[in-house]
Amino acid sequence: MTEKRNEIGVAVLGFGTVGAGVVEILLAQGDLLAARLGVRVALRAVCDLDLDTDRGVEVPDGILSRDSAAAIARDDVDVVVETIGGCGIARTLVLDALRRGKAVVTANKKLIAEHGKELFETARANGARLHFEASVGGGIPILKALTEGLVANRILRIEGILNGTCNYILTRMESEGLAFDPVLHAAQEAGYAEAEPSLDIDGHDTAHKAAILASLACGKLVEAKDVAVRGIRGIDARDIRYAGDLGYRIKLLAHMACGPAGLEVSVAPTLVGREHLLSQVSGVFNAVLVEGDSVGTTLFYGRGAGRAATASAVVADIADAAEAIARGGAWRYERLPEAGEIARRPRGEEESRHYLRFSLRDTPGALARMAQTLGAHGIGIASVIQKEGEEGAKYVPVVMVTGKVKAAALEAALAAIAADGDWTEGETVSYPING
Amino acid sequence: MTEKRNEIGVAVLGFGTVGAGVVEILLAQGDLLAARLGVRVALRAVCDLDLDTDRGVEVPDGILSRDSAAAIARDDVDVVVETIGGCGIARTLVLDALRRGKAVVTANKKLIAEHGKELFETARANGARLHFEASVGGGIPILKALTEGLVANRILRIEGILNGTCNYILTRMESEGLAFDPVLHAAQEAGYAEAEPSLDIDGHDTAHKAAILASLACGKLVEAKDVAVRGIRGIDARDIRYAGDLGYRIKLLAHMACGPAGLEVSVAPTLVGREHLLSQVSGVFNAVLVEGDSVGTTLFYGRGAGRAATASAVVADIADAAEAIARGGAWRYERLPEAGEIARRPRGEEESRHYLRFSLRDTPGALARMAQTLGAHGIGIASVIQKEGEEGAKYVPVVMVTGKVKAAALEAALAAIAADGDWTEGETVSYPING
Repeated sequence: MTEKRNEIGVAVLGFGTVGAGVVEILLAQGDLLAARLGVRVALRAVCDLDLDTDRGVEVPDGILSRDSAAAIARDDVDVVVETIGGCGIARTLVLDALRRGKAVVTANKKLIAEHGKELFETARANGARLHFEASVGGGIPILKALTEGLVANRILRIEGILNGTCNYILTRMESEGLAFDPVLHAAQEAGYAEAEPSLDIDGHDTAHKAAILASLACGKLVEAKDVAVRGIRGIDARDIRYAGDLGYRIKLLAHMACGPAGLEVSVAPTLVGREHLLSQVSGVFNAVLVEGDSVGTTLFYGRGAGRAATASAVVADIADAAEAIARGGAWRYERLPEAGEIARRPRGEEESRHYLRFSLRDTPGALARMAQTLGAHGIGIASVIQKEGEEGAKYVPVVMVTGKVKAAALEAALAAIAADGDWTEGETVSYPING
Repeated sequence: MTEKRNEIGVAVLGFGTVGAGVVEILLAQGDLLAARLGVRVALRAVCDLDLDTDRGVEVPDGILSRDSAAAIARDDVDVVVETIGGCGIARTLVLDALRRGKAVVTANKKLIAEHGKELFETARANGARLHFEASVGGGIPILKALTEGLVANRILRIEGILNGTCNYILTRMESEGLAFDPVLHAAQEAGYAEAEPSLDIDGHDTAHKAAILASLACGKLVEAKDVAVRGIRGIDARDIRYAGDLGYRIKLLAHMACGPAGLEVSVAPTLVGREHLLSQVSGVFNAVLVEGDSVGTTLFYGRGAGRAATASAVVADIADAAEAIARGGAWRYERLPEAGEIARRPRGEEESRHYLRFSLRDTPGALARMAQTLGAHGIGIASVIQKEGEEGAKYVPVVMVTGKVKAAALEAALAAIAADGDWTEGETVSYPING
């Protein structure tokens, strides 16, 4: 057995929000971590191009530098932490570290979701650890739960609220009865949304995280491009209100189902029953529901973003790597998803109930005709509410909950309705209903 | 580096509900586990005194026996799983296995909470692993979350719904407006409560689990006897109803607070706001809220008991042990709580709001006198509701929510009220309010 090492060296690349949070914990909790891990985690280097901005954390002399490549190359650096973000220099540096056999810890979901294959293969080929707990669910230890805590289970289903910006917007729209645009604007002013918000509100960030969760759940690489995505941009306050009248909240849900018919991963605004735990997740919080064949339903909840919460997950990864390196055990590469064929359910094959909102001509027989068209496509109606229209309007809003139907059948029915004369106006709004 | 082993041998002691669940997963998911862990987990022995009862799982020839001691002693058994329960033979066998340096996995909360010191010391002295994920929260990987996922955090607070029997009883009492006794009786008939229910309904099982959580959170041994316990026996349906009128549900909560003033661990029926996630935990489900100094508030939810869910946690522990043994890494003994002094907050020092129900004399001035007595003890009143009494009754129920008050001050005030003449009748009911 190799002799136990007493100190493990860490370099943090990127001294922005998350990087500063990581540095702060490593400096402030050094003794606590050493006591818990039986090995000291020593901060050797913090690298950033900008060394002038005050990050609110005092770094000892000789630690700060601009030269990430030099930090990676140091013999006394065992663990390289990437908190730069994006897929440019971050990818180059992570690959460099892996090729040198260093353990890499990253919070970069985009990098993992878009370059996972290359990263995982490089890690395997070089005997390097690669940890990315903070890439999904902020401080929630959800990847550890999936790959270790629930290792005895086939994962049948995952439902996740994975983007704090979207959840903040939806929560405020509902609680204050506001429209999408002013709430997005307020979120931008409060720092909860980016000036260029499309990564969040168009669902791509959620899709990155869904791809990572699905990969770990099924052991095969699922990439962001494999995820069907709908975001929340321009979601109508009426739908949030009507969903509320029916006993639901609208959440941007990542959904993964893995059964005999294959894997399906999607992101969409989804109606969740008010009594369901996921509907109680408010503001910038995240939650992930995981259903395993033995454990049944589990749920993991916490802050999905923010300096300290994300840093908590990054440091947990550093601790895992440090402890294992110190004790000389080999790493379980098996937990990295492998590239390879996954049985996929054709898109639109999964059945669920749907919420529909039509503008229906305010004339006798229109509703019957709608029901008839849906029925012709095998779609049952569980409930219908005709809402008050504006005075004198030719069309009135009608809200409907369908029975279980495949997305493909629903699309065909909606196309038929749109094509069939003037008894509806504009587009039909449709959202799946969870459960 | 030691050579990697390809197979790890497991003996399961106790072929009851949980043991059979573990055996079932090990036999059915052998290939899945081998693929995920990079090592095969081989079932070598299943031991029980009763070899006749049908457990609904087919065990290969030569595996079943009555001789646990022989199974532990086998050279090809690396991991010993204890699912016998209790502190008699289970303790003897676990100590035997630890002394032989075998890894031990147990679901036995009573054993850990009452004999933790002896077990942890034996494990350390003999270089043996000791895993007990399934002892708290059934299938929820909460101990792994506390000791690994949140390792970067000082744990400030834990609130847990940890006993499915109690939560089932409270959920049914609330949803169906029933009294305690008939619901307990129904729970016993449905198999959700034992014929001798005191371990559950008097709060001791929850206290065992609270002691384990507190030990892992603060790294020092907290024993069951250190936990202040109130159970739910005989809880009054009126209090559940009145709490509901005030916007709360009553839950049996384990509570741990760890701050500058020291550690406090208690178990008590507690009012939880209806909008709080913990109040949404229904029936036999468990949930644990953990607040860390970096991560903020997290919550972990799942089935707290049952064959498959508990087995999921046991097999996760087996997997951790198997993987680490196969790869030759030493274990982090540091995660076992150590015996030693813990700074304790004197009991009753923690402040919280309280729910009170009095039988107050139906006469002018009685409420004022009550308020005066409470005020004299420094207790403010946040709200008061006088309930309808029975017709012609001399006393009417009055329900009150206090401001924040130390339990000691509340007790003194209630004693003064009880001593002070005939303007109240019977005992005052009081429960803390969460948050």
